[in-house]
Order: sequence, then C-alpha cells, then structure tokens
Amino acid sequence: MESMIMSVEDIGWENYLADRTRGMSSSIIRELLKLTQKPDIISFAGGLPAPEFFPIREFDEACHYILTQHGEVALQYSPTEGFTPLIEYLAETMSKYGIWVELTNILPVSGSQQGLDLIGKIFLNPGTKIITGRPTYLGALQAWTAYQAQFLTVPLDEDGMMVDELPSILDANPDARLLYVLTNFHNPAGTTLPYERRLELAKIARHYDLVLIEDDPYGELRYEGEYITPLFCLAPERTIYLSTFSKTLTPGIRLAWVTAPKPVISRLIQAKQGADLHTGTFVQMITHDICRRGLLRQHVKNLRKAYRKRMYTMLDALAEHMPEGVTWTHPKGGLFLWATVPDAIDTAELLETAAERNVAYVPGFAFYPEGEGGQHSMRLNFSNADEEHIVEGIYRLGTVLKETLRG
Amino acid sequence: MESMIMSVEDIGWENYLADRTRGMSSSIIRELLKLTQKPDIISFAGGLPAPEFFPIREFDEACHYILTQHGEVALQYSPTEGFTPLIEYLAETMSKYGIWVELTNILPVSGSQQGLDLIGKIFLNPGTKIITGRPTYLGALQAWTAYQAQFLTVPLDEDGMMVDELPSILDANPDARLLYVLTNFHNPAGTTLPYERRLELAKIARHYDLVLIEDDPYGELRYEGEYITPLFCLAPERTIYLSTFSKTLTPGIRLAWVTAPKPVISRLIQAKQGADLHTGTFVQMITHDICRRGLLRQHVKNLRKAYRKRMYTMLDALAEHMPEGVTWTHPKGGLFLWATVPDAIDTAELLETAAERNVAYVPGFAFYPEGEGGQHSMRLNFSNADEEHIVEGIYRLGTVLKETLRG
Repeated sequence: MESMIMSVEDIGWENYLADRTRGMSSSIIRELLKLTQKPDIISFAGGLPAPEFFPIREFDEACHYILTQHGEVALQYSPTEGFTPLIEYLAETMSKYGIWVELTNILPVSGSQQGLDLIGKIFLNPGTKIITGRPTYLGALQAWTAYQAQFLTVPLDEDGMMVDELPSILDANPDARLLYVLTNFHNPAGTTLPYERRLELAKIARHYDLVLIEDDPYGELRYEGEYITPLFCLAPERTIYLSTFSKTLTPGIRLAWVTAPKPVISRLIQAKQGADLHTGTFVQMITHDICRRGLLRQHVKNLRKAYRKRMYTMLDALAEHMPEGVTWTHPKGGLFLWATVPDAIDTAELLETAAERNVAYVPGFAFYPEGEGGQHSMRLNFSNADEEHIVEGIYRLGTVLKETLRG
Repeated sequence: MESMIMSVEDIGWENYLADRTRGMSSSIIRELLKLTQKPDIISFAGGLPAPEFFPIREFDEACHYILTQHGEVALQYSPTEGFTPLIEYLAETMSKYGIWVELTNILPVSGSQQGLDLIGKIFLNPGTKIITGRPTYLGALQAWTAYQAQFLTVPLDEDGMMVDELPSILDANPDARLLYVLTNFHNPAGTTLPYERRLELAKIARHYDLVLIEDDPYGELRYEGEYITPLFCLAPERTIYLSTFSKTLTPGIRLAWVTAPKPVISRLIQAKQGADLHTGTFVQMITHDICRRGLLRQHVKNLRKAYRKRMYTMLDALAEHMPEGVTWTHPKGGLFLWATVPDAIDTAELLETAAERNVAYVPGFAFYPEGEGGQHSMRLNFSNADEEHIVEGIYRLGTVLKETLRG
C-alpha cells in the first residue's frame, strides 16, 4: 500500500496562508502530552482529570437510555442553541450559585476552548487589546492569537490578578476592550481572586467600559474555604462567564457552556453556526440524563475528596523534597499549583533532564504571551497521578532540581 | 424565579464587536428549521437524513463495548490529531475509492462545517477571493463570510460547475486563490460534475495556481450511474477533500474528516487546537467501533435503496403535480434536487403561503452570495420524508404554485 500512496510536491502552501497563521503555533501543552507519553513517566504536565474516577457505568446507562428512548432525536441534527433540557439544568444549577439567568443567556459549546474561540471571533479585530493575567491559561492565548489580538498583561500575586495595577494600564491603553480572568483556582497559578478584588474589578470594568471574560472551569472543585460570588454576579451587564463539564464529569465528550447577556449569546450562536453547526446532540442528551438523575452532584463530591487528598499529598511532598529557594502556591481547589525555582534554573531547559528522570511538568513560559516571562516557574498538576506517584514524582523533581542547583 | 433574574442593561455591545461580525447573519436554513417545526408540516427544507434508518441498536452496542472496554480512554482528553484507529479505517476506506493517502493526510473534525471553518481560518484574509458555484452550499458561505472572504461565482448547468467559464473569471481576477466545489450530488443543485470537467478543473487549477476545496458529503449515496474519480485524485497536490459521517451514519455525533497535503493538515491541526482542542474522543471511538464491525457498509447499502426510492417518488410526483414552466434537476444521488419556477414567482415570498399549506422548502437565494440570484429556485430534500408524505407534500406545493401563477 505504501508504494501506491501518491507522492505529492509542495505547491508552496506558505504563500496561500492567511496572515493570522503567522502567530499560530502548536500548543506546547499538547506537544508535551505527546513527549511525556513514555510508559514510566510520572507526568504533572497535563491538565487531565483522573480517569479512574470517570463515571463509566453511569455513562453506559445514560447512553442505553437515550438511544433506546430518544435515539432518533439524539442522533439527528439539532439547533445551534443547544438541547433545551440541558440548558434548563444549567440555569437551575447556576442559580444555586447566585447566577440567575434565563435560558437564552446560555449557549452549550464544544468545550470551553470553543467558547474562547467564538468570543475571539465576535470581538477581536487584528490588534484588539485584551488584558490577561501574567501568567494565564495558554488555551486562551492560543485561541486569540489566531485572531491577532494584542495582549496586555497584569501580574498575579498569591491572590490572583493584581487589580490595583489595572488603572495605570488602562489609562495608558484607553482602547483596551476586554479582560480575561480565571477567578477560581487559576490555571496555571492555582490562585483564587478574593471577593474584594472581584468587586474592585467590576468597578474598574464599569469605569473603563471593559468586557469581562470570566473563565471558571474548576469552580466546583473547591477543597478549602468558602464559595466566592462570581464576577458575573457583580457585573452581569458586561461579563461573559464560561464553565464546563470537562473537569466535573469528563473531558472526552467536549461539552461546556457560555453564559452572557443576550446580545452576546445571539452573536455567539451566529458564529457557532458557521463554526460547527451545533454541539453534538447525543453528548448533550446523555450528559443531561446523567445530570437529571443527580449523578453529577454525587460524583463531584467524590472528586473533591479525592483531589483534595492529592493536593495535600503534593504540598507535603514539595515541603519534604524541594531544595531551598523553591516556592509554590497553596491552591484552595482546582487541578494545579505553580512552583517558582531559583533564578539560576530555566524550567524549559530543565524539562529535558526531568523527562530523562521520568517526571514532567509544564514550563512556565507557556503561560505568558511570547517572551514575557515564566522562565523560572512551572505548572504542576495534582489531579491525574495517585498519591504514591505524586510522592515519587515530586521526589524525582526535587532530586533533579538539587542536582542542577549544585551544578 | 423569573422575578429574581437579573435585569441587565445593554452596554452597547455593537460597539465592541469585531468587523467580521457585520457580514454574519443567522443561517436561513436553521431559522427555517425552527419555523417549519409545525406539527403537520411536510418539510423538504432541511438536509436531514431519515431518522427511522439510524442504526440505533448498533450505536447502543458500540457505546456499551467502548465504555466497558475502553471507558477511561474514551472519556478522557485526546490528541487534536484524532483517534488513530479511526484514521486508519478512513485511510483504508478511501483507498477503495482511489484516494491513497497516509494517516497524516487525514484530520477528524467536528462535522464538515468545522472543516470549512478551519479552512477559512488558515487561508482567508479579509478580501481573499474564493470561487464557488452559483448556487453553492450555504454553510460554506456562512463559514467564510466570517473571515470576510470575497466570493466570485461560476454558474452551474445540469452537469454542475461550468468550468469553461473559469478562465475568463481567473484572468480578470489573477489574485483568486481558492475554489470550492461540490463534485457529487451538489447541495443545493443536485448536479454531479462529470469526469471530463474534473480533469479540466484540475488543469485550470494548475495553470492558475488555485487551491481546490472538494466537498463530498454525499459521495457514498449514489443511486444511478458509475462512481467518478474524485478531484482529489486528479490534483492531489492542491486539493483539500472533505467528507463526513453525517449522511452515511448519523449527524448528531458531529464527525467528519479532512484529507489534504501534509502542510495543510499540520496548519489545520494548529487551528483546531485553538478552536476546540480536539473532536470528542467518545464519538470517535464509538464510530470506529461501528465501522470496524462492518456495520456502516451494510447500513449505507440500505440507505441507498431507501433514498433512491424516495428520490424517484419525488421526481414522479413533480412530473404529476407541477404546473407548466416549473423545471427540476434529476440527481444521481445525494439528498437534494433543485427546482426552478417561472419568473413571476419569488420563492422567498412564496414560502409563507407554502408554510400555511404545511409544506416547506428552502428558497434559492439562500445558496447565493448576497443578492446574486436564486429568486426563482428552491431546494427540495427527498431523504427525510417517507413516500406518502413526499407525494402529499409535492401535491401541496404544486397546488400553491398553480394558485399563485393564476394570481
């Protein structure tokens, strides 16, 4: 068969590509996921939920029920607006967290990444200025680089985005239009924005006419402290709120949702029609069936317990095995913590040595707009490996760091 | 609950929107699908496969097998590149049709609409000239309008795109870069491009350095005549070939694939990473399982038989019930035919009367770049309604037309 495969010359594709492709590059996280798929590696690099907790039996039951009872609907095309019973469930669930919206304020999407892409599609001209934390979620950088956004960044401290720094940035950039923030258990930093900062951010957004994009994939995975009112409730007229089933249920179904003022939702629907017609009917219906039966709530309780234990295991292991000069955040939830190493070490360079020792992380630079920082930081995921592997992995990482520091 | 829903002022969202949103409008097809969801309507408007033929039991078995045997993989994140066994199946299947490619020439996507969107993302700057038939698939117009493409159009005759007209268009527009063509059972026109025209088109594309986008969602649904070599085989160095499971298996899973030269696939992967990370692992795996067991091939045979019968029923009913001056195409496969009515009738205006009489179609203008034509044409779908309803629906449509012509 190989010999019959057409050999094809390159017609000079680079000459045909749109300008926006110049900024596109392959996701470092995804390339890393491939590199670190060595059999014995302990990877803290991915953002993967623990597959051993996936509610597989519940999925099997839901698939069987939906196919036998509603198969002709579940496998057919459906409206871009999404599956109404699922939207009703989302509206009701969010109302328990203080987010009171109508059904037409919610749009199911094919993962939060699609939400970010569609937001880019409707809001970003080449050069549109968008403010993000420094560091920030790299999927957002990827999505909006494709629309040639210009990123302005605000530093983070242990409480997340330093909103006090915003006015001077905004005074210098009065044409900045959007601000992107991960309010709970920040990816990659592990920080949570306190209520006072959320209030201040809402106030600043009103003063400077900003649109706020609140990304909240991990909000339900809180292991410490009290629930904090979402930014959406504090500035509902200008906030686009994203959440997902990827971290609470499973990511392989690609199902998330956007909550926003109606003029935004109707534009997102138009953009989504052109992008993929609609999110899969089948996955919307099976997810709704699992939710309807109350299985998700119990599942999330179990996840919280398991991930909390893994987080503390990692925090304890870091305290035991890290050399002096290494610091890390103490998250109150989510999947990640953020470690900072002495200036002598470049975490991107260190990764090769770490991978040789069968331990992996994501170097910090991946979470910054190009060249802006992160050379001495790394993101560590604590949800995917079990306790034993977390301890062993952190021990290996500590050893690599100690040896490198000794030079 | 209503009373507690936040009432939110409009912050003037129009002022925040990207330039590209000006061209975006809601899909007429999808709005129609909503309008025509009256209980008693006979709708020839959608492009829906017949749900009574969906292989529901086979899906149920595949879901159960995949979840019990590979649940932890099926529900987890997976590479943007797609599920390798599915890609292997696609490569093998396409080779039977003369399309010999390697695995890295294929990218699974979330429906062909996503393929069109990603092609737009990597190739279209604002103003990039792309040639399409007149009429053409409206989803392509939608996808590329969002990238501010400029459409140049070539008329169709009963054999599809009139490729002889291309040189004069290309001489007048030497900066035209891409050409989009539905080679088999055209949506909406129902035409099939003969081999000689495909050869000529490949030759023209080489001469004028065009990239060809060959959209082939219905290729397997042939009811008459012989298989014709795809354009992809005639110009593999410059053709991007799209096909889908939506019409052969089911559309509600949103699964299609793009076949193209490797430099294109690698750019599409980058664009897809930013757009939705990856197509659902679960739907890729259950689809592969159904294919692996040979169920798709048998299913497509059954579909061909059923749809062929429906097509002939519609052709016979048209001959019986249409007033003089109405003409229509005779497709050799697919889901659609294209009817042209006397100049006295505007099909967009007529739709309201038709819907009152409980019959629906898509007015022709929807398939033309804005204002370019189609006022006296309509697309009729013959796959979704059964024979009895086809006859009754065409009778109703004939009656409405006769009454309107009598004025």
